[in-house]
Amino acid sequence: MKRYRTWTLTDLVNDVWLDSFTTGGDRLHLGQAQNWSIRKRTLRGGLRDGVDVIEVTNGALSYSILPTRGMGLHSGRYRGIDLGWNAPLHGPVHPRHVNTTERGGIGWLTGFDEWLCRCGLASNGPPGEDVHTDRHGQTRRDLLPLHGRIANQPAYYVEVRVGLDSPHELCVTGQVEEGGLFHPRLVLTTTYTTIPGSNRIVIHDHVENRGGQSAEMQLLYHCNFGPPLLEAGSRFAVPIREAAPISASAAGGIATFDTYAGPVAGFAEQVFCIDPLGDSAGHTLAMLYNHARDKGVVLRFNRQELPCFTVWKNTAALEDGYVTGLEPATNFPNFKTFERQQGRVVVLPAGGHWETTWSIEAHDGAAEVSGVLAEIVSLQAQAKAILHRTPHARFAVAP
Amino acid sequence: MKRYRTWTLTDLVNDVWLDSFTTGGDRLHLGQAQNWSIRKRTLRGGLRDGVDVIEVTNGALSYSILPTRGMGLHSGRYRGIDLGWNAPLHGPVHPRHVNTTERGGIGWLTGFDEWLCRCGLASNGPPGEDVHTDRHGQTRRDLLPLHGRIANQPAYYVEVRVGLDSPHELCVTGQVEEGGLFHPRLVLTTTYTTIPGSNRIVIHDHVENRGGQSAEMQLLYHCNFGPPLLEAGSRFAVPIREAAPISASAAGGIATFDTYAGPVAGFAEQVFCIDPLGDSAGHTLAMLYNHARDKGVVLRFNRQELPCFTVWKNTAALEDGYVTGLEPATNFPNFKTFERQQGRVVVLPAGGHWETTWSIEAHDGAAEVSGVLAEIVSLQAQAKAILHRTPHARFAVAP
Amino acid sequence: MKRYRTWTLTDLVNDVWLDSFTTGGDRLHLGQAQNWSIRKRTLRGGLRDGVDVIEVTNGALSYSILPTRGMGLHSGRYRGIDLGWNAPLHGPVHPRHVNTTERGGIGWLTGFDEWLCRCGLASNGPPGEDVHTDRHGQTRRDLLPLHGRIANQPAYYVEVRVGLDSPHELCVTGQVEEGGLFHPRLVLTTTYTTIPGSNRIVIHDHVENRGGQSAEMQLLYHCNFGPPLLEAGSRFAVPIREAAPISASAAGGIATFDTYAGPVAGFAEQVFCIDPLGDSAGHTLAMLYNHARDKGVVLRFNRQELPCFTVWKNTAALEDGYVTGLEPATNFPNFKTFERQQGRVVVLPAGGHWETTWSIEAHDGAAEVSGVLAEIVSLQAQAKAILHRTPHARFAVAP
Repeated sequence: MKRYRTWTLTDLVNDVWLDSFTTGGDRLHLGQAQNWSIRKRTLRGGLRDGVDVIEVTNGALSYSILPTRGMGLHSGRYRGIDLGWNAPLHGPVHPRHVNTTERGGIGWLTGFDEWLCRCGLASNGPPGEDVHTDRHGQTRRDLLPLHGRIANQPAYYVEVRVGLDSPHELCVTGQVEEGGLFHPRLVLTTTYTTIPGSNRIVIHDHVENRGGQSAEMQLLYHCNFGPPLLEAGSRFAVPIREAAPISASAAGGIATFDTYAGPVAGFAEQVFCIDPLGDSAGHTLAMLYNHARDKGVVLRFNRQELPCFTVWKNTAALEDGYVTGLEPATNFPNFKTFERQQGRVVVLPAGGHWETTWSIEAHDGAAEVSGVLAEIVSLQAQAKAILHRTPHARFAVAP
Repeated sequence: MKRYRTWTLTDLVNDVWLDSFTTGGDRLHLGQAQNWSIRKRTLRGGLRDGVDVIEVTNGALSYSILPTRGMGLHSGRYRGIDLGWNAPLHGPVHPRHVNTTERGGIGWLTGFDEWLCRCGLASNGPPGEDVHTDRHGQTRRDLLPLHGRIANQPAYYVEVRVGLDSPHELCVTGQVEEGGLFHPRLVLTTTYTTIPGSNRIVIHDHVENRGGQSAEMQLLYHCNFGPPLLEAGSRFAVPIREAAPISASAAGGIATFDTYAGPVAGFAEQVFCIDPLGDSAGHTLAMLYNHARDKGVVLRFNRQELPCFTVWKNTAALEDGYVTGLEPATNFPNFKTFERQQGRVVVLPAGGHWETTWSIEAHDGAAEVSGVLAEIVSLQAQAKAILHRTPHARFAVAP
Repeated sequence: MKRYRTWTLTDLVNDVWLDSFTTGGDRLHLGQAQNWSIRKRTLRGGLRDGVDVIEVTNGALSYSILPTRGMGLHSGRYRGIDLGWNAPLHGPVHPRHVNTTERGGIGWLTGFDEWLCRCGLASNGPPGEDVHTDRHGQTRRDLLPLHGRIANQPAYYVEVRVGLDSPHELCVTGQVEEGGLFHPRLVLTTTYTTIPGSNRIVIHDHVENRGGQSAEMQLLYHCNFGPPLLEAGSRFAVPIREAAPISASAAGGIATFDTYAGPVAGFAEQVFCIDPLGDSAGHTLAMLYNHARDKGVVLRFNRQELPCFTVWKNTAALEDGYVTGLEPATNFPNFKTFERQQGRVVVLPAGGHWETTWSIEAHDGAAEVSGVLAEIVSLQAQAKAILHRTPHARFAVAP
């Protein structure tokens, strides 16, 4: 059995709280690995006042985790390459400054500046009134805010765990809850794991229905990238079974849907819904890579757990957030009522759970990027991609 | 005159703030009483980050007061018996995480996990638009959120007072305000008092209209109980003059309205409105007691001050908050417009006030429970209870 | 070149934060000036918990700045004279307790208790849906809350600067941002400057459009005064080119529009819109002065930058906030759609900015007050005031 050293940073049930925490290669010897560290502190000032951040570096790859914002990843960096984006605000933003009901239900945007932001858990997608019939035959009406609650819920449990045996795992685990009377009680337990010197973060998410009745769940991983991975001539690649633009606006960009323009002030966002091809076990992957094809970021996921893959192209001006989102998910980012009709809302029985393991990799060499492209081409060889040029009833609400 | 030792914990006007505070039998000798203490600290992490709590124990009975949440009581415990309930969230919840406008005005539920939560002060009951004619003949339209503002307002003054003469009173006083331009300015001054070794908390509430015009007031004490007081076969008892279910759903449970079922997943809440009988001075009481009739909790109040008594039965799954609310109040929890029509909204002139003294008692013996039942039977002897089997125009808005 | 000593109190970009800060005449010798100081601390308790305040005194004039509330001025005092007002709440209020969507979009009022509160930056005025056609010919619908976002945004940069050469300037600079994806990105840089012993604060505001597209801007300085400057018989004076009541209610007070009544419970607010006369460079001024004409406060501004001057008379009961607002602004406080139609919404190109320098002066002698009145009379000599007795299409939406 592997041995670990474990620290509890936050545990509300047992009244545990650490104001700050540091461990690293200078304190804990893990064979050859030295340049790693895990550090927790609380940010002060502006919209970030009171936001806890856990900064992890494995010596090559570093990232910051936000327990205060649903255990999202605020930023990432690999050997000098920024992996995130520049949102048009000074974040991260404490949930107390986010009013989900503002601007007709899109107030969530006020806090959105993460590299990886979860959209869920009871719902995601645009705001609106979800009218549906529950299992008792009763009509229910729920007002859903944009992209749900989880990104603005603080973790009630946070733990750091370091593997004492090789390969030495650097793990941060957090538990975040969507609760409250007359609301589904869903608990996310997430663990981010990396190995000293590696180019990868492994994400294990476990969502449990702790309520006494069955509950619906939606989870979309909003992974956001800006320069230098995103630039004029950058592309994304993913093995496609079937894909379609989500709107007439996106349909206008279908001819160049997998390539990116440089920043264009006023660019209207384009969203593409993709049903990816995977191997026999469901494993698949997607990559964003730069014009020179020597830098890339790869998401590896399993379509049995995350069957929907969405690409969000928002190549607006740099000042307005020049960004693309690569978004593996349980569903497409349509309104929940539609996704339910399409059978793309997970239903968890009381006490039931859903889980997935996926990863983010960074690459900084042409050979590596080519290697990943070859993997994608190999999966695509199974079938010719069906690419709808206009919105399709399976992927988007009719306008 | 009785002598007291007094500490000011918070006083915004005079810029007083104590980060933490402790007193108790080991520091201040009060005759025989030793196992008492009063302690203030600030909780950290999760939704509770920044919530002040004052923990009081008198040696037999302990409870925690939340200055940050309108001086509500978060939990209570008497000789090993939990007096509160298990809400489906990790509270207490800082008001900054409560958005009253969410979900069509029921966002208040996100913060609701107290043992005793006040609903008020300008309004309580369900959300909606209160259209009414003010005293100048003008039509006013107010959007009211579920159960008002007071539970999410932090105290601006907090004081601890210990009686140096027998019986030694352990008192915590707080002042909480609902204010703001063009809003009624109502100030709650509450004092919780207990005596070392006793089974009782005495609550004195004083609500003052500090505005320059008359103002309306509603106050409902949402006292919530779960296991072990609530279980299959638990009952409530109260001397009844007249009572009715608040809805068709509650009417379905009228045959067993004073007994409780065990946890049932998906149980639809039932609410009963009760006009209680009191003695000639208005004194009355209500009790919740367990199946074995050897544990009970008693509310003693005065129907001249709190004429309305509501029982909320929410015997859903344990995970969803298996709970009952016993709720003495100035009104029933119907929408304010209806309560005004029924003459159940208090009007305070400028500078005027309303006050009440009531108490919560815990009992852990069959003889004690029987004794309280005898008191209730004795009051009931005045008149036969009028029990409406369907919603009645005096108690509930017609569907 | 003048020499300064500079301290950075907050700088999110460089991770700078000072928990507290003090400088003053006892630490830094500035010639004769001794009784000055600049002090920063964080308030605790109640609604103000976590609000940063910078208290400046120049020996004669003192004021407090709120970085947490958009760099507003919370209070002011000159040689024993209170310059602000008494709002009906215990402020200042942390933005986390302000829900802009409450009460149909007027939740902003819950936090309003400043001496100087900025209303803006993307919009100000009453709440509502702003339907308009953007420059691409698209119809846009924006839900605007009362008086915009800036007053509830915390500063991300704060700096104190003291002039080492005579006249020794005491400066506090802050930067506050309205940002977020799909929202105009406007940055306010404000500097408050005073000289030891003087009766004046000079305010320099610079608003930059940091977005990649042109953006609209509105800014109104809500300067609020209560006793002793406001009392029965107080008056305001401003050189008037043209003026009108904003509503039928205000029209009812037109006969005495420039004089103030004492506190009247239930007084319905009256608002007057004024197009002021200025000198050839646009310089103009307004004064509020007391009944005895021996105390006054003066706003000096430039009508080329701030063409609109609004007087808000809210002489309600003292307990309800007996107050008047003198409000130089880019626009009148009508709904944004109307102000846009009237050409009173500033449009900033990408990277463009707007700026203004104006000042607040306090006076405590009859001669001084007379001197200022003479200035106003002199400007009024240019033209006879056009005073509409009822609402006028240029100044207010038709009812």
